[in-house]
Parts: sequence; C-alpha cells; structure tokens
Amino acid sequence: MRVGVLTGGGDCPGLNAVIRAIVRKGTQEYGYDFLGFRDGWRGPLENDTVPLDIPAVRGILPRGGTILGSSRTNPLKAEDGVRRIKETLAKQEVEALIAIGGEDTLGVATRLSGGFGVPCVGVPKTIDNDLSATDYTFGFDTAVGVATEAIDRLHTTAESHMRVLVVEVMGRHAGWIALHSGLAGGANVILIPEQRFDVDQVCGWIQSRFKVRYAPIVVVAEGAMPKGGQMVLKDDSKDSFGHVRLSGVGEWLAKEIESRTGKEARTTVLGHTQRGGTPSAFDRWLATRFGLHAIEAVHDGDFGTMVALRGTDIVRVPISEATAKLKTVDPALYAEAGVFFG
Amino acid sequence: MRVGVLTGGGDCPGLNAVIRAIVRKGTQEYGYDFLGFRDGWRGPLENDTVPLDIPAVRGILPRGGTILGSSRTNPLKAEDGVRRIKETLAKQEVEALIAIGGEDTLGVATRLSGGFGVPCVGVPKTIDNDLSATDYTFGFDTAVGVATEAIDRLHTTAESHMRVLVVEVMGRHAGWIALHSGLAGGANVILIPEQRFDVDQVCGWIQSRFKVRYAPIVVVAEGAMPKGGQMVLKDDSKDSFGHVRLSGVGEWLAKEIESRTGKEARTTVLGHTQRGGTPSAFDRWLATRFGLHAIEAVHDGDFGTMVALRGTDIVRVPISEATAKLKTVDPALYAEAGVFFG
Amino acid sequence: MRVGVLTGGGDCPGLNAVIRAIVRKGTQEYGYDFLGFRDGWRGPLENDTVPLDIPAVRGILPRGGTILGSSRTNPLKAEDGVRRIKETLAKQEVEALIAIGGEDTLGVATRLSGGFGVPCVGVPKTIDNDLSATDYTFGFDTAVGVATEAIDRLHTTAESHMRVLVVEVMGRHAGWIALHSGLAGGANVILIPEQRFDVDQVCGWIQSRFKVRYAPIVVVAEGAMPKGGQMVLKDDSKDSFGHVRLSGVGEWLAKEIESRTGKEARTTVLGHTQRGGTPSAFDRWLATRFGLHAIEAVHDGDFGTMVALRGTDIVRVPISEATAKLKTVDPALYAEAGVFFG
Amino acid sequence: MRVGVLTGGGDCPGLNAVIRAIVRKGTQEYGYDFLGFRDGWRGPLENDTVPLDIPAVRGILPRGGTILGSSRTNPLKAEDGVRRIKETLAKQEVEALIAIGGEDTLGVATRLSGGFGVPCVGVPKTIDNDLSATDYTFGFDTAVGVATEAIDRLHTTAESHMRVLVVEVMGRHAGWIALHSGLAGGANVILIPEQRFDVDQVCGWIQSRFKVRYAPIVVVAEGAMPKGGQMVLKDDSKDSFGHVRLSGVGEWLAKEIESRTGKEARTTVLGHTQRGGTPSAFDRWLATRFGLHAIEAVHDGDFGTMVALRGTDIVRVPISEATAKLKTVDPALYAEAGVFFG
Repeated sequence: MRVGVLTGGGDCPGLNAVIRAIVRKGTQEYGYDFLGFRDGWRGPLENDTVPLDIPAVRGILPRGGTILGSSRTNPLKAEDGVRRIKETLAKQEVEALIAIGGEDTLGVATRLSGGFGVPCVGVPKTIDNDLSATDYTFGFDTAVGVATEAIDRLHTTAESHMRVLVVEVMGRHAGWIALHSGLAGGANVILIPEQRFDVDQVCGWIQSRFKVRYAPIVVVAEGAMPKGGQMVLKDDSKDSFGHVRLSGVGEWLAKEIESRTGKEARTTVLGHTQRGGTPSAFDRWLATRFGLHAIEAVHDGDFGTMVALRGTDIVRVPISEATAKLKTVDPALYAEAGVFFG
Repeated sequence: MRVGVLTGGGDCPGLNAVIRAIVRKGTQEYGYDFLGFRDGWRGPLENDTVPLDIPAVRGILPRGGTILGSSRTNPLKAEDGVRRIKETLAKQEVEALIAIGGEDTLGVATRLSGGFGVPCVGVPKTIDNDLSATDYTFGFDTAVGVATEAIDRLHTTAESHMRVLVVEVMGRHAGWIALHSGLAGGANVILIPEQRFDVDQVCGWIQSRFKVRYAPIVVVAEGAMPKGGQMVLKDDSKDSFGHVRLSGVGEWLAKEIESRTGKEARTTVLGHTQRGGTPSAFDRWLATRFGLHAIEAVHDGDFGTMVALRGTDIVRVPISEATAKLKTVDPALYAEAGVFFG
Repeated sequence: MRVGVLTGGGDCPGLNAVIRAIVRKGTQEYGYDFLGFRDGWRGPLENDTVPLDIPAVRGILPRGGTILGSSRTNPLKAEDGVRRIKETLAKQEVEALIAIGGEDTLGVATRLSGGFGVPCVGVPKTIDNDLSATDYTFGFDTAVGVATEAIDRLHTTAESHMRVLVVEVMGRHAGWIALHSGLAGGANVILIPEQRFDVDQVCGWIQSRFKVRYAPIVVVAEGAMPKGGQMVLKDDSKDSFGHVRLSGVGEWLAKEIESRTGKEARTTVLGHTQRGGTPSAFDRWLATRFGLHAIEAVHDGDFGTMVALRGTDIVRVPISEATAKLKTVDPALYAEAGVFFG
Repeated sequence: MRVGVLTGGGDCPGLNAVIRAIVRKGTQEYGYDFLGFRDGWRGPLENDTVPLDIPAVRGILPRGGTILGSSRTNPLKAEDGVRRIKETLAKQEVEALIAIGGEDTLGVATRLSGGFGVPCVGVPKTIDNDLSATDYTFGFDTAVGVATEAIDRLHTTAESHMRVLVVEVMGRHAGWIALHSGLAGGANVILIPEQRFDVDQVCGWIQSRFKVRYAPIVVVAEGAMPKGGQMVLKDDSKDSFGHVRLSGVGEWLAKEIESRTGKEARTTVLGHTQRGGTPSAFDRWLATRFGLHAIEAVHDGDFGTMVALRGTDIVRVPISEATAKLKTVDPALYAEAGVFFG
C-alpha cells in the first residue's frame, strides 16, 4: 500500500518528527511505501510530489520546518479541486492520505474523508494550541520555551533601567502562548484575546510593580484587544492570505503606558522566532507519537479520524471534532494567573 | 493562619516555583503568613526555620534548587520524631504544612496527616517521573531536555568517528527519562530498568546501524540491567544515605559492546546536570500551578491530599495514592519505541 | 581605601560580572572597601548609593543587567555637576572611581579624571562593540549568540514557506552584530550602517537564492540605510533621551522586497532580547578579567586609564582613546562576507 | 584547479563551517573544484574520497562534526605512506591540499609540505585550545559554553544539598577549558594540568566555602594531577589509539574530598558532550574566517602555511609554528583566577 503525506498551514517545530515516525513505522512494520505531497493541499491538487522513504527522513527529527513544504492552498476553493485530488491519488496509486495541519488543512480532510471517499487520517498542528480534542499540539511547547527565554532576558534589562517591557507573542484567537510563557517567565501582566483588557487596570498593575522597585514585564498575545475598542491598529493592511494584520497591539500598548504612567516602555515582538528551529524534547516526543499512531490508524483502516493527546495517551477522535470549535483559555484558568499581576 | 513549607529528597528544577506560588497566593488571596522549614523534615524535627514571605520569594521562579534546602531525614525513624515535629509546629504556631517531595517525603506526610493529626498537603516531586497519581512531575521535563540536548551533541561526534556512544541517564527504577530523551534525541537503542536487556540484541541493533553508515547512540537508564545478571557493577559501595550505587551500567555496557562488536564505544554519564539549573517553561508552569492548588487545598482544609496533574487539569488525590505504587513504563509504550531501534 | 563603582548607559550582559570581580579582588587582595553609585553618573551627582561588599556580589556572575542600575545622566550637563560629584566623593570618603560604560559614560570619566582631578579608571562597555582601543567588549558575544540562535530558528520557517525573512539586529552606527550573527547564522544578505545598500542588489541576491530552491534570510543592522535616501522612516519620533528612533529599516525593507520581487517577506526585530539575560561564557570571562584588571589599575594609581582586550591580553590605555573614534566595520572585512551573499 | 580537503583528529564544532567556507569562496571566487578525502589522512592514503561542491556544503554551517569523517591515521607511519598519498593526489588531479586538524594532522602536513613537495595549507583545530600560534581555535568556545552551562546547573544542586560537586572537563595537557569555564561558571576551585594541585589546599578552599553557607564547585581538567603522585588512576587501560586513559581524576578527587572533609562529594564527567553539537556563534565566525583565508592562501600559492587568529585578524604562519610547542596556561593567568578560590 502507498500512503500520501502532506503538511499544511503555518510551520511548526515537530512536523518533520511526525513525518519521520510515519515513514519509519509504516515501512518497517507494515511494509507500506510513501509519497510526499509538496506544499500542503497544493501537492495533490497539482500532482507535485516529493520522494519519501527511510533515507529521506534520516536526520530530520531535530529539524524545524517541514521537508514537504507547506502552503495554505484550499482545494475546496479551487476549480474542480476534489476531482483533481482524486485523480492525483489514483494516478500515483496512493490509497490513503495523512494530512498534518491545523483548522483549515484538517477541515479539508474532514470534507474529503466524509463526502468524497478520500481515506484520510489527520494529525493536529497549531502553534497556538487552539485546536479542540487534544490536550496539546506539538510546536506549542517550543514556542512557549522561546518566549519564556526571551522574557527571562528582558527582565534584566527592565530592572537595570526601571522600564516597562512589553512582549508581544503569538496567539490571534487564543492566549495559550501568552498565558504559559507569561506564567513561566514571571510576567507582571498577561493579556489574552479571550478577555478584553482595561488599559487603566494594566497601568495600575505596572505602577504597583514599580512601587516595590521592580520593573514590569507585560506579555500580550497578538490578538489581545483593549476594552471599548480604543486601540488604533498600526497597520490595517492585509497580508497575502487576505488576513488583516493584527500585529501592533504591543507597540500601541507601550505608547499608552508611556503616556499614562510617565514611565519609559519598550516593545519586543517575538514573531517568527517562536515557530522555527529545533523542537523541544516534549514536542519531538509528542510529534513522534502522533506519527506512530497516525500510521497505525491507517493500518487499522480507521479513516476520518485524527490522533490526539489525552493526558499521556494518544487517542483517536473524529477529525471533525478538532475543527468544530476553537479551544480558548478558560476564564477560570486565566483568573488563576491573576495572583501574579502587579 | 501560619503555614509551614518544606522540600525533601533530591532537588528538582521547579521547587522554588512551587514555593513562590504558594507564598504569593497564600499571602495575597488568603492573608496567610508562612514559615519555611530548612532541609526537609529535618526542619520541623529540629525547629530549624527560614523566613518566608513575598520578598523572600522574589526572583526565585527561574532558579533551580530550593531556597529551603533539602535532606532525606526521616522523622519517623528519629527518636520521638512525631512528638518533636508537633512541638515545633505548636511553638511556631504553624497550623498547616505543605510538604513538597517524593516517595519518602510524602510517605511521612501521609503518616503524619493520617494517624497523628498533623494537617498536611502534599506536592509530588520526582525527577524520575515515577510517582503514581500524576501524569507528570515538575523537573522531569527539564531533565529530559538536558538529556536530549546532550544526545543531540553526541550524534555529531559519533558520526564523525563512527563510534558507539552510550549515554547513561537518570532513572533507578523507572525508565521515563531514558525513554523520553531517547525518543526525542533519536537514539538507536533505549534501555530501561523495567525490562532486562539482552547484550547480544543490543549489539545486533548497533551493527545494523553501522551498516547504513550511521553511528549508534545508546541511551541507558542508570537502573537498567542485563538479562541473566551478567553485569559486574563497577562500584558496590554505598552512598551516605545507605543506597547502593548503581552507576556503572553505561561504562559496563560500552566495554561489552567494544569487545563483542569490535567498534569503539564511549560512555557519557549525565549525572547531576540533569537535575540542576533553571526549569523548563513546562516545569515552571506545572510547578507554579501545583503551588497555587496546594495552598488552595490548605484553604479548603482538604488535608491528607496531594495535588496532581491529569491532562491539563490540576486535581487533588489522597497523598497515599502517590506513594502506593511506583509508576513504571508500560511495556506497550516501550514497545512503541522499538521501531526506532537499530 | 574606599572605591566607588558605577555603571552607565544601556545595560549589557556582563556588567555584574565586572562588579563582582572588582569587589572580590579589591576586598581580598587589597583590603579596599567599596561603595556602589546608583544609576550611572546620577549616583555621585545626587549622592545615591548602594552598599557593595562581597555578600552583595554573591551569585551575580551569571545574571544580566546591573545591580547598580544605570542611566544616561550626564553630570557635565547638570548645573554644578562636577562640584556636586566631588562633594559626594568627599562626603563618602571615596578616593577612586571605576566607571563602567560606553562612549558617554567614559567621556565623562575622561573629563573628570583629566581636568578635574577625580581619580577614575574606566571599563569599556558597548553591546555594539564599537568602542576603539579594545578588540571586544563584553555583552557583544551574548548579543551575537542571541541573534544567531534567532536566525537559526528563522531558517526553517523561511524554507517551509519559501519566504524572505528579514531580521533587524542592533547596531546604530556599527554593523558588528549584523556581520557576526549574519555570518554565523548563514544569512544570505547582511546590511550594515557603514555602507549604504542598494535595494535592487539586495533583491537580486534574494532572487538568486530562490533559484536554488532555498529561502533567503536578510540580516540588517538597525542603523543600515539604503542608497539615495529612499527610505521613509516609519517613525520619526524621538525617545526620552532625545534620540531619533531609527527602528524601522527591517519593516521598510521587507515591504520593498515584497513589492519588487513578488515574494512574501516578513520582519523580525530582535530588540532588547539581544541585550538582556545571562552572559555567554566568553562575556563572563572577559567581564571578569576586565574587573580584575580595573581594580589592579586603581591599586597601581594608574588613573585616567581604561582596561582593554588585545588578543588574549588585558592591557591599559588612556580612557580618551576609547572615545576618540567609533570602531566601525572595515570595508575589507565586510567584503570578505560577500561571498555568502545571494 | 582541484583542491583536496581533509579533517583529522578528534572532532570539533566548526569543522563543517571551515569546509563550507573553503568550498564557497574557492568555487565562486577562484573557480576551483574540490575533492573531499574521507577520515583524515586515511583518505588520501587509501584514495577514499567524498564529492565536495556547493550543494554538498549547503546547510552544514550549524552542524557539529565533519561531513568528511575523521581518524587519527598517520600516513608517515604507514608503509610507503608518502608515495601512496602522492599517487592519490596525482590520480585525482588534486594540486593542493587543505588539512584541518591538530598537532598530529598538521605535523603530517608540515612534513609533506616541507620535504615531500605536497602543497599543503593548514587550518588549526583543537578543542583544548592548546595549539601555539593562534589566539583561539574553533570548537573551544563551544566546549567552554557547554561546560559553563553544566556548571550553572550544578550550582543549584550543590546549594540545595550542601554538597561538593566536582566537574571533570576536557584538557589532557592544557587547562584552558577548565580555566575559562571555571571562571565563567563561578567555580570555587579550578585545577589544571599545568600545575600539580595539593589536595589539602583544595579541601581548605572547600571548607572555607561551606563556612559562608555556600556549596563548592570544583572544576578539574582531565589531565590535572595531585602533588606527590598520590593519585591512583581508576583505569590504566589503553584506548584503541594506544593512549592511556587519564579519566578518573574527578572521581578520585571526590572520594578524597569526602574522606578528608566529611562532606558529600559527587562527580560529573562532561566527556564528549563538550565536543559535539552545533558550534557557538563565535566558533562559526572563526571557522568560517579560517576557511576563507585558507583558500586564499592556496590561491596565493602560500603553501606550508597555516591560518591563525591574532586579535581580530586572521594571519598566516608556518604550519610548523603551530606544532612546535604546546600552548599551556601561563602561571600568571592561572594566578589571576586564584582570587575566586575558596
């Protein structure tokens, strides 16, 4: 049996570890062979492939990115997309497909697997950790680690100059990276998209921190918004995927803090450094196990399912479960962190 | 109310993060004050205390070790131990005790809390991750990270010289660190205490690795043992706690490999570098949440319980649950890793 | 004898290591005692001091920032500044002063030491490595390390999405950080303030990189400027020290690249993460040796001098030498790197 | 013109960076082509080659080890060695050879270049930094960084348990790694091969450290020896290269300390983790510049020379200069560190 593999959406540390585990176990235990599709759904749509066997996956475990390339191509929006994909699979004699990706990529897999008879197994991927049905996604731990290390570094600069340092981290719709790195980094304020913030309250926390002669660190998710819509976005242009650029909350907030408290404030936008590079040990472990279980699902003919982490177990759930609802930060969990504010 | 805090057993990255969270939340939300006991159960036994308030815990989140010191003193074995502890608590007006520790430390807490009316709440700690009732303990992720980074470094040396490199990691009775770091580091053989290994099989894996012109990395837990008891321990002396030193399996194995395969083999014993230093972001997060929930348990009067991680939730379980049974690596989980051997 | 110590200007990893070495050697070998002045020259100007003895410097070697605080206060511009400083020194019985700082801080030391009879010894500090008379300054190696690690991480994201990634690093007037981290990180274009760049040439290098199916990384110093002054600065506001904010070249360049090549381009501004946090081993070594030699210069009564690195030796030079001329990147050295462009 | 490249002796982070720089500049600027010889001098001796062109060196800059493999084969000791090498070079049409290696490898290059008319250029390599004629060799900074990070981690464990921790680092004949990492890591005792140590004095330093309630870290080079030859080596076997294994001083010393001071002492032997893995930014910079200048020397026909670092400049010196004399730690420099002992 030949199995196709593709990676879609933004890259995440651990993608290569998933691919390697799939190929190792599939080849050695089940005797499958493999075909990589290049750049997510663009690959099967345009019959663009990458050879994928054991030599091809040697040494890729610790490497970030994806040897298959990635894109946000949505074949359901392409003319005749489903037919073209089925044609590629037939031509390439690919009998099953493992799609590694986030909401969009898995949404396509759900549709293909469901109505169109394309046998898919999903592997969840989102750097933001906002996919339902799994405790964690790989890449998230690495991103939190990078952000935490940056916060560690910023503390000393903040203290030396008694400045406010605002750190903008990833998280458009969910504040997981902000919450975890903020707690781990000892931030004095953590702002997440799930709950609009009050700039005056933020300034209050900052002032109370200065009172004990310590300099405050504010961690803000890129998607966090102030109450009452007071924020004027720096940049309302759209990127090439048609998304409005939400970046800018960090700089906006630093200026507000400066003008309201009279303290110097500086912003650091961590940006893409959070999603690249070698995966953490946790992410390599999780990604490897996801890969092993995904190919097992293929072997069991359990299509339309996705692997997921529950506690320390890898389970299978319907792919649709992952994409049904964004996993956001629970208000009670966010409240737990409040004891460290100020 | 005054709450006592102590840390017992081997140190673990994250102990300070637990202490800080307890003190921050206890002081700010419940108005408690705190007293630190020095060196685990030796503190209350000998009325040796450390002042513990918010200034005392500033800046300790990212620091390894424990500001309270640690020891393996067992008050139940000391003459009149229980009475002396109760006397200290009475004299210091300490009404509740949070014990952060492993099997031994929590075992004492169970006994004191149960039969002797000392109100204790437990926080589980073991670098080896072998306590039941919790998915993970803090410190484990840091140890796995340190070991994985070491394995990453050793790969290049192994390849350059086409040598076998044996890495001995922590794990006397459970192979969690070996299994996680071995998988994350791309080891070619992983040996754990739960399953006696066959040296010939190990040599077989090594040879098959050389056949594809790659150099093998063998990760071995310090407590792993060969089949048939062929191993002659390097050193059967006892350390100052009366434990037999089990170290030596790494060097022993390297010599066996050299003599059986004719390939050069070298050993690296990671030792204490695995348990010191700044905690990983995951461990800071887990330790912080353990601390927050432990003081909440005190506030709820829920004594005799211990905090534990289940999935992404912190729950409370009877302390006795943690110490009833060692959490070892499940054979099925170990078998999962076998696809990467050789 | 009592010796005063102050740290001025932007913070740098290694400041604390200098302070510790001064206090350890001065106390143990020469029997001096010490007084810290808070926030650079503001300390002696306003008689604001920090106790400084061996217990005060314990544990600070690996910590970024400065336990003395820093500022850019220039006492020569303050009314009656020199008289007030001399008054403070007399009142505090401080007989010698060690000033750790950059161009501005050392400029003051030169003046005070020269015309005004204040016995000063200087220790050079600049994260940008642009002080003459010393091969390297501490903090620089750490900054290069942070930038290089970020570039390493960005490579995988660039490859996975076939995007251009622009990394803006520190360096207002000198391109040392850009040059070193760009070379160490395998950047495809490195742009420095010393040489105006041609956007079309940059786009040419980018295109030639894409031709071999690799994604380009562009490292640009914050002070780099395009030829012909085509750049429109994002932000011409001044910061609280009256400096024009030069940040923005990274974002500007990414937009130019996008519009000229049709390729997606993203910017990461590393900002303050480059100057905070624990110093690298090299910087700890250099800072420690600077401290040891600075107090030796005090002991020798060799005032008006500054310690400096020459090869592997620490030497003394007149403070004025350091501030006479900015140390910029030699065109021949920059040309050497050109083989990796494109 | 075709240029041969080989890497000999123990591996070092940065070898690949040298190779890449040679190939990039040689191909692009001089139009040379290249041939890699496998496993040091064994390659030309046995005509065992590796293709070496620009695609072959892509992505290797951040990777430890050497893509050419390494060995300690000495062709001058092989029968007819020189003739066979000249034969290989003639057959492969290799007109110049760049030998990257340490004392042994460069010793051969000196001889071949001198008496036998084989046009060689050398690049110095030693993880121990003990080659004369160059301020630093690449790999050393990485090793010091790894050792320093380990010492950082060990401090917290030492403090928590009030134990002595002995760290054995590389350095058979020269104590550079011990001295640099010991100073950078804040060790309380540093022992180097250049100066026999007195165990009683070591124990005195340890005791004085405990007196101020801090736990001591002892950094000892693997080649350090006690006065009066009291040390009984753990293991007097020879490795496969015929060298006596000197390892063991760390464990020996820990036992001596335990028995003389009554304090618990533990040893960590860092071993091969110091020489593998990704090079530091400094080492990538140095290795890259060495590569660029080595191929320039070839282009200039300047054979029999070796590149070397002097301050911030790369210079050329006769290869023989590097191997004439071991570069050991100057007693004055070692004395400088003494202020931190105890």
